[in-house]
Amino acid sequence: MARRNSSRAMPGVARFHVPSARPDVRTVSLSADEAHHLRHVLRLDVGAEVIAFDGAGHEWRARVGEAGKSGVQLALEEASTAVAEPVVNVTLGIGWLKGDQMDAVVRDATMLGASAIAPFIWEYVSVPASVWRRAGAIERWQRVAVSSAKQCHRAVVPGIEAVRSLSQLIDDSMDRTLVVAVEPSAENDLGGRFTKTVKRPPRSTALALIGPEGGWSSSEITMLKDRGAELVQLGPRTLRAETAPTVLLTVLWTMWGW
Amino acid sequence: MARRNSSRAMPGVARFHVPSARPDVRTVSLSADEAHHLRHVLRLDVGAEVIAFDGAGHEWRARVGEAGKSGVQLALEEASTAVAEPVVNVTLGIGWLKGDQMDAVVRDATMLGASAIAPFIWEYVSVPASVWRRAGAIERWQRVAVSSAKQCHRAVVPGIEAVRSLSQLIDDSMDRTLVVAVEPSAENDLGGRFTKTVKRPPRSTALALIGPEGGWSSSEITMLKDRGAELVQLGPRTLRAETAPTVLLTVLWTMWGW
Repeated sequence: MARRNSSRAMPGVARFHVPSARPDVRTVSLSADEAHHLRHVLRLDVGAEVIAFDGAGHEWRARVGEAGKSGVQLALEEASTAVAEPVVNVTLGIGWLKGDQMDAVVRDATMLGASAIAPFIWEYVSVPASVWRRAGAIERWQRVAVSSAKQCHRAVVPGIEAVRSLSQLIDDSMDRTLVVAVEPSAENDLGGRFTKTVKRPPRSTALALIGPEGGWSSSEITMLKDRGAELVQLGPRTLRAETAPTVLLTVLWTMWGW
Repeated sequence: MARRNSSRAMPGVARFHVPSARPDVRTVSLSADEAHHLRHVLRLDVGAEVIAFDGAGHEWRARVGEAGKSGVQLALEEASTAVAEPVVNVTLGIGWLKGDQMDAVVRDATMLGASAIAPFIWEYVSVPASVWRRAGAIERWQRVAVSSAKQCHRAVVPGIEAVRSLSQLIDDSMDRTLVVAVEPSAENDLGGRFTKTVKRPPRSTALALIGPEGGWSSSEITMLKDRGAELVQLGPRTLRAETAPTVLLTVLWTMWGW
């Protein structure tokens, strides 16, 4: 009965992302985006029951306390039990994709329980640096992650990390216990033929890497192997770039548990 | 090296669906759709190397033999090794979704290796019978399946079955060894807590059912249990309707093998 108070039991109750929510706070203000959603999309009135979540795993039953031109306030009531997070914190490292493909990846990886999303660029990337250095992309994906967390009833919003090179991303992940990288030629495969290292859940965190559809370059493979990455393949068919993260995360949860 | 001749080793070679292709035939004609794709989208010339696949698991290297107003002929050359099909033939039973959602489900289930796709309607379906009885929907989804098979390098095109009621679909599947149905309250779950029946691959065929997002009605649950269905849940978050089939099929392949 641990989930009796969870928002999942209240599927019709709207959810709002309120990073400033704290256990010792009674009233919180919504951001402009969230206030717009409450007032103009859902058209909720003062007194309406909602859920407020902080994006870090906590959520509260709340009521609309004030909703006017000066903004929307929520009155926090009791804390409610958020849906469980996976046992392992998995950062999804995703090779740069076109805008709408990245939106789909961020949306689905949020829904599939990734704890962070790290876009990276690789050797053959065809995206000019001026594009991936724009802060706007990160901010847009962060909004997509918030929106997906609201939809899927998750109380955690995965952080979108800065765009880095593959080698930088791996360097920055040295404290992670396991790096898993999708590679069509790998011996570990979705058919259940996994090495013990891949099968066993890492103690706390993992980095799951999705590279180019055609596979990594030989120098990237060498780098991945040098750093102890486990290569896995996701079956013989060619997956669409935006679907591969969903398949990889599902494989990991099936082996490691939610 | 079993895959040395597979089309996967020729990622740039265009694939065409030719149901009439046979081992003892030298020349085949493309359908109007496939001829249009060859001539006006890919703009291939006479002599161009292509792949022809019959949709039933066989494929051939071929060349464009003739391409004019009277149609396009392919000259079949040697048979090539198609990518492997999963060990278990899984029919995806999918509760009716809106048009573009069904398109995405058919596309992704084809890419994920489903052997057939069976749309069904349930107790609370809000779609009028006049809509789901139209033959046009089945034909459109069949075209989506062909297009996805071409993209993902699969030589099998899953058949789209006629729309039926849930009970009719299950009745028609009595020879299948295992019915697996997604249900949020199930004890079998993606966290690796599966019963032996779900873990063990069925001998040959299975029916994997995705119902309404909110779960089945109690009478549907009773019917499913009466007929020996195994209920599984796909984790605590609410999955988008068009993503659930990808997650379910991935769970099954992870347990049962490709």
